[in-house]
Amino acid sequence: MIKPQTLKGFRDFLPEDARKRQYVIQTVKDVYECYGFSPLETPVLEYEEILTGKYGDEGDKLMYRFEDNGKRKVAMRYDQTVPLARVIAQYQNELPMPFKRYQIQNVWRAENTQRGRFREFLQCDADIIGSNSALADAEIIQTAYDALKKLGFDTFKILINDRSIFSDISNEVVLSIDKLKKIQHDGVIDELVRKGLYDKQSAEKMLRELQEKAPTPRLVEVLEILSQSVPKEYIHFTPTLARGLDYYTGLIFEIEVDEYPVGSVCGGGRYDNLIGMFMNNTNLPAVGFAFGFDRVIEAMNELNLFPQELHTTKVLVTIFSKELQDKSLEITAFLRTNNINTELYLPTNNLDQTIKMDKQLKYADRKKIPYVVIIGPDESAKNVVQLKNLQTREQKEVSLNELIKLIA
Amino acid sequence: MIKPQTLKGFRDFLPEDARKRQYVIQTVKDVYECYGFSPLETPVLEYEEILTGKYGDEGDKLMYRFEDNGKRKVAMRYDQTVPLARVIAQYQNELPMPFKRYQIQNVWRAENTQRGRFREFLQCDADIIGSNSALADAEIIQTAYDALKKLGFDTFKILINDRSIFSDISNEVVLSIDKLKKIQHDGVIDELVRKGLYDKQSAEKMLRELQEKAPTPRLVEVLEILSQSVPKEYIHFTPTLARGLDYYTGLIFEIEVDEYPVGSVCGGGRYDNLIGMFMNNTNLPAVGFAFGFDRVIEAMNELNLFPQELHTTKVLVTIFSKELQDKSLEITAFLRTNNINTELYLPTNNLDQTIKMDKQLKYADRKKIPYVVIIGPDESAKNVVQLKNLQTREQKEVSLNELIKLIA
Repeated sequence: MIKPQTLKGFRDFLPEDARKRQYVIQTVKDVYECYGFSPLETPVLEYEEILTGKYGDEGDKLMYRFEDNGKRKVAMRYDQTVPLARVIAQYQNELPMPFKRYQIQNVWRAENTQRGRFREFLQCDADIIGSNSALADAEIIQTAYDALKKLGFDTFKILINDRSIFSDISNEVVLSIDKLKKIQHDGVIDELVRKGLYDKQSAEKMLRELQEKAPTPRLVEVLEILSQSVPKEYIHFTPTLARGLDYYTGLIFEIEVDEYPVGSVCGGGRYDNLIGMFMNNTNLPAVGFAFGFDRVIEAMNELNLFPQELHTTKVLVTIFSKELQDKSLEITAFLRTNNINTELYLPTNNLDQTIKMDKQLKYADRKKIPYVVIIGPDESAKNVVQLKNLQTREQKEVSLNELIKLIA
Repeated sequence: MIKPQTLKGFRDFLPEDARKRQYVIQTVKDVYECYGFSPLETPVLEYEEILTGKYGDEGDKLMYRFEDNGKRKVAMRYDQTVPLARVIAQYQNELPMPFKRYQIQNVWRAENTQRGRFREFLQCDADIIGSNSALADAEIIQTAYDALKKLGFDTFKILINDRSIFSDISNEVVLSIDKLKKIQHDGVIDELVRKGLYDKQSAEKMLRELQEKAPTPRLVEVLEILSQSVPKEYIHFTPTLARGLDYYTGLIFEIEVDEYPVGSVCGGGRYDNLIGMFMNNTNLPAVGFAFGFDRVIEAMNELNLFPQELHTTKVLVTIFSKELQDKSLEITAFLRTNNINTELYLPTNNLDQTIKMDKQLKYADRKKIPYVVIIGPDESAKNVVQLKNLQTREQKEVSLNELIKLIA
């Protein structure tokens, strides 16, 4: 006997969780579409050389790579940005510029599962390629803001900075500053001194001066555009925000949810030197962002933001007896034709002559179906049904027209 | 320079194709939900032993398999039925029975690409586990019928049979009969004779008798239930339909589109001995079906069944000049708030002081956006806009309220 088990670090999504995921994906997708982003899909597998060397040593180590049956070296999608760069280079004459695309697919990383990380997870990216306008920067932030609002988040902080604010600070120092939230002010100062980059006094001075910096002229322009559509209280210019030593070249931002303060649910920025990697390193301006999908789901669970009614079946039509089965079929078809998501109770066994009503009600309870329809001999004769509300346990006789009105 | 190329046998889906895929997925999903099926997602990677030996030698050969960084032998999803069997065994106490699930995910097979096959393709399965009722058989066919109707297919044939009709015919003979459509009557007879299974005369007799067979009592029951919701002209009892030597144990069916006669777009049946494979081979009744997703897309392209308006952006708001940019931002926000999918034209370069209107109109044409809004100094002063219909090339001055009405 082979033991039925899910691969380590991977997850099954049973209906309740799968529905939550679909809800978030659909909401985010609707917002992306509202802003004029178009969908893109790329394959799970790429030639290895397309992906290796693009994510640093760590990336090459965590990447799923293997040789396929045709001895090709292949690798599984590690993020959605490198495949986007490949697509831009490969189809450059077919794509309108600026190219606004969204991509919602899984990526795979052989992370250490002990740190609560998953090896297969969803990314929801939206990027604008081919415009270096401040309008594009603002639009990316506005899209993120709008999507979070549509998901039901009410109070959150959009931390904004411009990478060029660090122009006269070395990368090593930026790396320490990036830890400000994790190890606090004193931790950063200690680290800078320990690394021999500053003495304590000049470290304090450098950090204070950084914290007092004003937004760059470009950021001022972005903030001004944003002020038309995103309320001021959401926007927090944060000159110490660094987002690692990533590939960002201009705007950077992260969004934190006030009532769920465990890191950002969303982040992004401008990266003008990356997308041209397959085009002789042509500089192609780009700005984009992505949701931390699992964190968004976690935060929405925590804050109770999912609608009650994600179980989409509205009504279970029961079967009173084999003789009355046709009547149940008729009502089921009638409800479905009226666009009401309807289940017909399916007996376990074809030979069941009578199916206990109790068993059918339990099935509806278990599946959290809100209404049950019962058609016995009396109801069949009068062409009515009994409608039972499973929350209130109330039951009443209704006509077919009333039935539609009450359930829809 | 690394050459940007898609892995052999794999596909990128640029926006137009990605939208068509989304449209089909959403339509099918809505029908599945209307019939009370719930979503399930399983990981791309499984322990190899979960998948190997389940699809015959051919399957083991075509399966993508490798050793991960932790020296685990893993395999990529090859179909959605074996993972379903694993899920049923693993979570049996959490799942309501009958368990009606749909699953719409990619699978990977290292097929010979010369036969026009892809190595990554989407499956759209719907299955009912835990009921051997004829109602479940009928419901599966009805779901398929309804989904095809909702996709816009008008005339198609549902070929139906019961595997038990072959009970006194050897598997080898069934394999030849299965080729009836491909190699015709004479081809089948020839093959049976060549294989030494019959002489010509008894082969003819066997085939004629098979073709004259009546539906089994179980099939009669299914057809009677179906007659309530699926018009008779769609249903074709086909005693020679075999669906390979698959795992089917009862009902089998295939659907062919009349105007696109290149094989079935959809097929399925009852398989009562498979789902228990991870449960000490407990017999767990099951019936289900799947769409041939790529064929459905191909047929819909061929028959022009996709709606014209899959490009969801309804309107492009242009920017007349840097001075009037704020006005364009305001109109854009106004349209989006009114749930109209709107693009703001994003200039390539932040320094563009004036952006040629011509370039902006070309962008809208290229992206097939139906409407363009222009706000010049006069319009701004009067708080109106110019609305241009890109199909008719007509342009007129409208108020903001008229704008919403005309576009929505």
